[in-house]
Amino acid sequence: MTAYQRLEARFARLSHLGGAEAVLHWDSAVIMPAGGAEARSEQLAALAVVRHELLTAPDMAELLEAAAAEALDDWQQANLRQMRRRWRHASALPADLVEARSRCNNACELLWRQARKDDDFARLTASLTEVVALARQAADIKGEAFGCAPYDALLDQYESGLTVDAVDRSFTVLQDRLPGLIDAAITCQERQPPLVVAEPVDTARQAALAQELVAAVGLSSRHGRLDISHHPFTGGVPDDVRLTTRYDDADPISSLMAALHEAGHAMYERGLPPQWRNQPVGRAMGMAVHESQSLIVEMQACRSQAFVDFLAGRMRALWDVSGPAWEADNVGRTVRRVSRSLIRVDADELTYPLHVILRYRLERALLSGELAVTDLPGAWRDGMRDLLGIEPPDDRDGCLQDVHWYGGDFGYFPTYTLGAIAAAQIMAKARVGAPEMDDALSRGDFGPLIGWLAQNIHARGSFPDCLDALLIEATGQPLSEQDYLRHLVDRYSD
Amino acid sequence: MTAYQRLEARFARLSHLGGAEAVLHWDSAVIMPAGGAEARSEQLAALAVVRHELLTAPDMAELLEAAAAEALDDWQQANLRQMRRRWRHASALPADLVEARSRCNNACELLWRQARKDDDFARLTASLTEVVALARQAADIKGEAFGCAPYDALLDQYESGLTVDAVDRSFTVLQDRLPGLIDAAITCQERQPPLVVAEPVDTARQAALAQELVAAVGLSSRHGRLDISHHPFTGGVPDDVRLTTRYDDADPISSLMAALHEAGHAMYERGLPPQWRNQPVGRAMGMAVHESQSLIVEMQACRSQAFVDFLAGRMRALWDVSGPAWEADNVGRTVRRVSRSLIRVDADELTYPLHVILRYRLERALLSGELAVTDLPGAWRDGMRDLLGIEPPDDRDGCLQDVHWYGGDFGYFPTYTLGAIAAAQIMAKARVGAPEMDDALSRGDFGPLIGWLAQNIHARGSFPDCLDALLIEATGQPLSEQDYLRHLVDRYSD
Repeated sequence: MTAYQRLEARFARLSHLGGAEAVLHWDSAVIMPAGGAEARSEQLAALAVVRHELLTAPDMAELLEAAAAEALDDWQQANLRQMRRRWRHASALPADLVEARSRCNNACELLWRQARKDDDFARLTASLTEVVALARQAADIKGEAFGCAPYDALLDQYESGLTVDAVDRSFTVLQDRLPGLIDAAITCQERQPPLVVAEPVDTARQAALAQELVAAVGLSSRHGRLDISHHPFTGGVPDDVRLTTRYDDADPISSLMAALHEAGHAMYERGLPPQWRNQPVGRAMGMAVHESQSLIVEMQACRSQAFVDFLAGRMRALWDVSGPAWEADNVGRTVRRVSRSLIRVDADELTYPLHVILRYRLERALLSGELAVTDLPGAWRDGMRDLLGIEPPDDRDGCLQDVHWYGGDFGYFPTYTLGAIAAAQIMAKARVGAPEMDDALSRGDFGPLIGWLAQNIHARGSFPDCLDALLIEATGQPLSEQDYLRHLVDRYSD
Repeated sequence: MTAYQRLEARFARLSHLGGAEAVLHWDSAVIMPAGGAEARSEQLAALAVVRHELLTAPDMAELLEAAAAEALDDWQQANLRQMRRRWRHASALPADLVEARSRCNNACELLWRQARKDDDFARLTASLTEVVALARQAADIKGEAFGCAPYDALLDQYESGLTVDAVDRSFTVLQDRLPGLIDAAITCQERQPPLVVAEPVDTARQAALAQELVAAVGLSSRHGRLDISHHPFTGGVPDDVRLTTRYDDADPISSLMAALHEAGHAMYERGLPPQWRNQPVGRAMGMAVHESQSLIVEMQACRSQAFVDFLAGRMRALWDVSGPAWEADNVGRTVRRVSRSLIRVDADELTYPLHVILRYRLERALLSGELAVTDLPGAWRDGMRDLLGIEPPDDRDGCLQDVHWYGGDFGYFPTYTLGAIAAAQIMAKARVGAPEMDDALSRGDFGPLIGWLAQNIHARGSFPDCLDALLIEATGQPLSEQDYLRHLVDRYSD
């Protein structure tokens, strides 16, 4: 076996173990009885440490170097580049830190579930303080090893090559433009406010339509499931994708939109190149690209009036509802309603980036030590007032709303908004490449859209080097806010 | 760290990875979309090979030897003995054989699910032939390493120290006594045959009562779940036990009994000594002991008239059924009905051992090479005619009915009947130790029974050396057919 082949075998095993972890993580969130938490946390920690040991085996540096001198085709070279990237991240950290983080993050995440229900941030402070301390330690070690700022090293984990400079550049533009756009949208919307959808829709009826729509987007029940969890997510592995959503009887449309969002993530996983299934180059590029795929489905396609014309009909038919609130025009106004609100995952696309900017500021302050965990609830309220002009009445709808920090994810939030920017840029190009797309969407047919994405984004895996390289390939230019701002103006300022 | 402490750390990691495997195996049978099969099979194979590598690490022999010279208390010594036993089994086999078996057994088991539905044994012959060949290879290698017959080495995997001689001794007694007891029982029963329970009961109502009864046996929803799979089993880990059953609208009572059987397994897992949670000595002793715990609940307790008096009332109340068929006397006659039938898992306790003896004969012939896989369906029919005087009309109700061989388990079947014998022996002693037990069962209260078992069986973990050692501790004598035959005569020949 060549060095490259030995690396492929090793990364295949890593991928299988990672798949096992992904399914167990899904199980913790969806299925597991509460009393299994401690055992699960030990299982996940053991898997994490085994993977870490495999990835940082003493001969890895040598194998990577030897493989670089072998005759490889373009995809193999890209695969080797991705292997090196993973190895670089993993070998920077000592095994005991990896194991401690896995155990501590899991424990804190499980604690968070109950603390959020009980609106009891105090119960979490000790655990979150440990999570932050370990994340900071990891960031410091990597920053030193890679010769970059600690936070840049965290960003790079989620999206290759992403830096604070790039994030700041985009976020400065948005912070400048969004407040005005939000004001304009709200003024616009006051002329004909959406009628409130007053009838509650029970979980069974919501789930039936959610399943139908997820299938329409393209996910077959042979390769995926849609279940319920506190925080919607997409997990599992490409041939067994596990989607979750949550249902609120009083707000059935937003539950649907959450399921459609996850369906966009799922189709990306399903479309990754099958011949590279268990290799790094066959995986999703990064979290910003992942988010762009979910937002293309949810925000770009499913909140467009073309699709809403179809959707409103299905809601009336399957949910047995009627009246002016359920007509397509009003459903359209409802799904495009703009308001300054408390919960990120329920936020509209105009205010959403401000939620992200808040988290970006706060997590940088937590990691740098400027902000103590005990001061987080207050800092959250101050930030909300500053950015959105509102203040949460409690921590449940404040700093306890998102799982990320409690699960140890720092450096992740910015990718949501970079994903939104990329989504608009990719969608603009897809509309040129598949001009029948909007017509099809108005019949509930995602074929042209997903077909274009499958070919130009999904099938590329991690072959391009970074987000900008993928965007140049697919759209002709690197990440730019242009299409995004144009989309926001077109949709909300008319 | 001492050598013993290093071993404890290593076995804890093995236990966590084993727990991960157990949950993934449960997921494959209960949750997984069909298209995830290949990926899952790779995940399980990767976990199996990692565990095998850990268990057979080059320094294990040395560590085990060094630990033996250290000052250890009784439980630590028993733990070390169990570690050595596991190491001995694992280190006998080369890693590539372990990985090949895991992948091949998983693939065959998944194939079996569809083949059974379609009554298509031919589709399986190639896969099962490979499964048998790999099992034979493993048995030969271990037989040689341990200086015993290959089949003894397989038996020892499932119940420490079990041999063909011991199995033959018990099975000869049963083969001698059971036919006469079955004739007598059927004659007895013809005087007042049970009325047929004719109303179908839908899955939802069955599941509601099954959940209630599993909780009554003692399994809290905080530490366990009851779901549906083709073949009922108990999986997961002690603090997160995953039970499955299957529901047949036309035969609701047998579905309940299957759930109660699994609840007996579950309580054994729950009762294992928590201070030894992830160590070998804290695990179940073996499969015969495990089966004894499920059969004490299902056969000894739940088919007794004392419990049936309670059960019939719950069925009438929760299932909204009435009439003479649902009166306690008739339910009692129904759950103790004896008949020569085709399906092992639905067989009564009098004919069940004959089903096991058939499988014991056939699997020994398969492994020795006397019987080719292609001849299995015919040999099954011949054996059924010989032992039970009936013949299956198809393979679905013949050699395709059990998952075991298709999942690579050989040497396992005898433990079912040894478990039944042990169950009667343990129950006889428990009745003396907890004389209020039958009264309590007639009120649906499992407290006294499970309390006695928890103390005398469950909490002992694998501290005793083998089944006989446990039985001597708990009942004063090694395995004996005496109480079992007395129980059968009392219950069926009156």
